[in-house]
Amino acid sequence: MDSLERLAELFERFPGIGPRQARRFVYHLLTSDAGFRKELSQTIDAIGAAARHCPECGRFHDGANPRCGICANSNRDSSLLTVVATDADLRAIEQSASYRGYYFVLGGTVSLAANKQATLRESMMKEQVTKRADTGLEEVILAFPASPEGDVTADHIHSVLAPLADEKGFKITQLGRGLSTGSELEYADSTTIKNALDSRR
Amino acid sequence: MDSLERLAELFERFPGIGPRQARRFVYHLLTSDAGFRKELSQTIDAIGAAARHCPECGRFHDGANPRCGICANSNRDSSLLTVVATDADLRAIEQSASYRGYYFVLGGTVSLAANKQATLRESMMKEQVTKRADTGLEEVILAFPASPEGDVTADHIHSVLAPLADEKGFKITQLGRGLSTGSELEYADSTTIKNALDSRR
Amino acid sequence: MDSLERLAELFERFPGIGPRQARRFVYHLLTSDAGFRKELSQTIDAIGAAARHCPECGRFHDGANPRCGICANSNRDSSLLTVVATDADLRAIEQSASYRGYYFVLGGTVSLAANKQATLRESMMKEQVTKRADTGLEEVILAFPASPEGDVTADHIHSVLAPLADEKGFKITQLGRGLSTGSELEYADSTTIKNALDSRR
Amino acid sequence: MDSLERLAELFERFPGIGPRQARRFVYHLLTSDAGFRKELSQTIDAIGAAARHCPECGRFHDGANPRCGICANSNRDSSLLTVVATDADLRAIEQSASYRGYYFVLGGTVSLAANKQATLRESMMKEQVTKRADTGLEEVILAFPASPEGDVTADHIHSVLAPLADEKGFKITQLGRGLSTGSELEYADSTTIKNALDSRR
Repeated sequence: MDSLERLAELFERFPGIGPRQARRFVYHLLTSDAGFRKELSQTIDAIGAAARHCPECGRFHDGANPRCGICANSNRDSSLLTVVATDADLRAIEQSASYRGYYFVLGGTVSLAANKQATLRESMMKEQVTKRADTGLEEVILAFPASPEGDVTADHIHSVLAPLADEKGFKITQLGRGLSTGSELEYADSTTIKNALDSRR
Repeated sequence: MDSLERLAELFERFPGIGPRQARRFVYHLLTSDAGFRKELSQTIDAIGAAARHCPECGRFHDGANPRCGICANSNRDSSLLTVVATDADLRAIEQSASYRGYYFVLGGTVSLAANKQATLRESMMKEQVTKRADTGLEEVILAFPASPEGDVTADHIHSVLAPLADEKGFKITQLGRGLSTGSELEYADSTTIKNALDSRR
Repeated sequence: MDSLERLAELFERFPGIGPRQARRFVYHLLTSDAGFRKELSQTIDAIGAAARHCPECGRFHDGANPRCGICANSNRDSSLLTVVATDADLRAIEQSASYRGYYFVLGGTVSLAANKQATLRESMMKEQVTKRADTGLEEVILAFPASPEGDVTADHIHSVLAPLADEKGFKITQLGRGLSTGSELEYADSTTIKNALDSRR
Repeated sequence: MDSLERLAELFERFPGIGPRQARRFVYHLLTSDAGFRKELSQTIDAIGAAARHCPECGRFHDGANPRCGICANSNRDSSLLTVVATDADLRAIEQSASYRGYYFVLGGTVSLAANKQATLRESMMKEQVTKRADTGLEEVILAFPASPEGDVTADHIHSVLAPLADEKGFKITQLGRGLSTGSELEYADSTTIKNALDSRR
C-alpha cells in the first residue's frame, strides 16, 4: 500500500479524526520541513520508550524522573488531595491556578453501561491516601464531572474512602455546584437552579 | 400593500425572526383553521387591554386581579424574597420547583455599555423590601446571571439594600457558583473551577 | 387561564417556536406600543377574511383582486411556466430576478412516506398548462428541490404532462444540477460532482 | 522540556488542532500499543524520505514509482484532462467514480488577497497540456470551487490555455453550476437559482 494512504489510515485512528482531516494531516507533513517530521517521529518514539504512570498520582509523565513534577514538588500543600477521573481534568484544575495541593488520577469514572467498566486505580488510591493521611492530609476533594457518571463515581469513591477518613481523621468534600461562568438563569436547567439556591451564600 | 406581505413584516419585528420564518408564520396562519386565527387576534387584543405589571413584584400578569398569582398566594414563604432581572428568570426559578418564597423583578441588569441603561425598578424594590422586612422577611436572594453584567448588578443592588438589611435585620445572599449540570472539568473555565473549589463541601 | 399564558401557548403552535421563544414573543408584544398590537391583530383578521389561493397559479394572495399580482401581470413572458412545490420556492425564484415567466404552485412534493400524501393540485395544473399551451406556452420548467422527494415529484409531474407536451408542442425541462454557490470540490458529494461533470460546458 | 508536552506542541501545529485535542492525541498514543506508535513514526519517516510530486500531474505520491498511480495507468481516457486546485479536489473527483480521464494539480487557486499568492504550477501545466494535445487530448476541464477565488482562477487558466486550445484543437470546459444535492429552492441563493435556470435541460 501507498505509504501516504497508510499514514492517513493511521491518523484516522486518532480520536475525533475522520478520513478528510487525516489526509489533511498527511499533506501538512508533506509540506512541512524535514526537521518537523523528524522531531515528530523521534518524540513519538521517545514517549513510547520512556513515558509511564507516576507511581504516586497515577498520571502519565515522561519518565525522566521516577515521579511526576507535581508529586515531586515538596512545596505544594500536603493537607489537600484532589481525586480526579483523568489527566485532562487534573490539567484543567492546574490551569485554574486556584489549587496548590496534590492529586490522584483514578483513570476514569464508574461507567453506567454495565458492559464497559474502566479499570480504576482504587487500591493504589487507598494506599496513597493512607500514606498521605500519616503525613498531614486533612481533606480529600472529589472532583468529578457534574454528570450521572460523575455522581456515581463520587458516591462510590466516597464509600471506599469513608472508613479511612473516620480512622485517620481527614474529611471528604466535593466540588460545589451552581451557576457556572456565563450561565443565564433563563436557560439554566432546574437542577442547576436548585443547586445554586442550595449553595447560596 | 398586500396584507400577507404586511403581516410578514409585522412578524419580522418579533425577536429572533427573519424574513423567511416570518413568511412561514403567515403561511401557517393561512393554512390554520379560522378558529385559531380568531383566538390569536382576540388574545393579542386582550393582553393589550388588560395586561399590566404586578404592583408588588413588577412582573407582567394578565390583569385579571390586581396582583399576580404568586404575590397573591399567602401560602408562600414570606421569609424569602428573590430579586431577579427578568420575568423569564422568575419563570426558570419557578420551574425548578425548589423555591417557595416571593420575588421581585428588577426589569433588567445594569448595562456595562454606558449608553444603554435599562430603567430598573429600584425604588419600587426598596419599598417592597421595606414592607416585607416588617412582616417576616429574613433573606433577600440576589439571583442574577453569572456574567459581568449580572455581577455588576448584584454589587449595585447589594449596596442599595445593605443599609436596609442592617436596619431591618435580614441578610442578603447570592446564588452559588460552581459546576452546572453537565459540566466536564476538562472543558470548564478557570473561574468556574475556582468557584467550584471555593464552594466545595 | 391566564391570557398571557394562553397567548404563549398559541405562539408555541407556530412552526419552529418552542416554549421559551413563545414567551419571548408575549413579552415583546407586552412591551410594544398599542398600535403595533392593534395592527397585528387586525392584519391577522384581515387575512382570515380575504386571503385565498390564486385561481391560476394556486399560490396564496391577499384576495384584493381575483388573481395574484404575477398572474395578473400581462408583461411577463407567456412562453414559460415554472412548476414549483411551494409559495416559498416561488418567492425564492422571484427574488433571484432571473425569471420573467409565469408559475404554478403544486402545493407540495410527492411524499416518500406512504402515509402522508400531500394533496397536489394536479388537475388544476393540467388545466392551466392546457390553457397556456393554447396561448404561446413553449416550455414548462420543473423546479423541485434536489432531493429524493423532489426527484420523484419531477418524474411524476413529467409523466403527467408528457402527453400534453406531445400534443401541444411545448417542451419540459428541469433545473440544472451542479456546484451551487460556495461549493468546494473537496466537500462536494459524489452525485454533485457527477452532475457538475455531466453539465460541464 | 517534558517530552509529552513537546509532543502535544508538535500536534498543535497540525491543521485544525487546538491544545486540548493535541493533548488527547498524546494520551491516545500513550495508551495505544507499542506497534501502533512504531508504525506511525516509521511511516512519518518513510514519507519524508520518499514522497514527491508526480512529474506529470503534480500531486503528491509516495515515490515508490516515478509517476503516480493515475498518470501511470494507461487505461484511462487520454482525451480528457481535468485541472484542479488541490490533491484533495482530485481525490473528491476520483471518489465520485464518474471520471476516467487524467488530472493536473495546479497547487492552489489565484488568491484575491494581493499579499498571499500561491505558486501555481502554470508552466508545468502548459507543458503537460502540450504533450497530451499531441497524443489525443480533446478537452481540458477546469474544476475549481464555485467561489470568487475559483472563478478568478478559472478565468486566468482559461486565458493561459486558450492560445494552445486554438492551436491544438482541444476545447476548454468548466464544471456545471446549479442545485447541488440536497438544495432546497427556498434556501438557495439567487446566483444558484439563476445558474440552475440557465443550465436547465
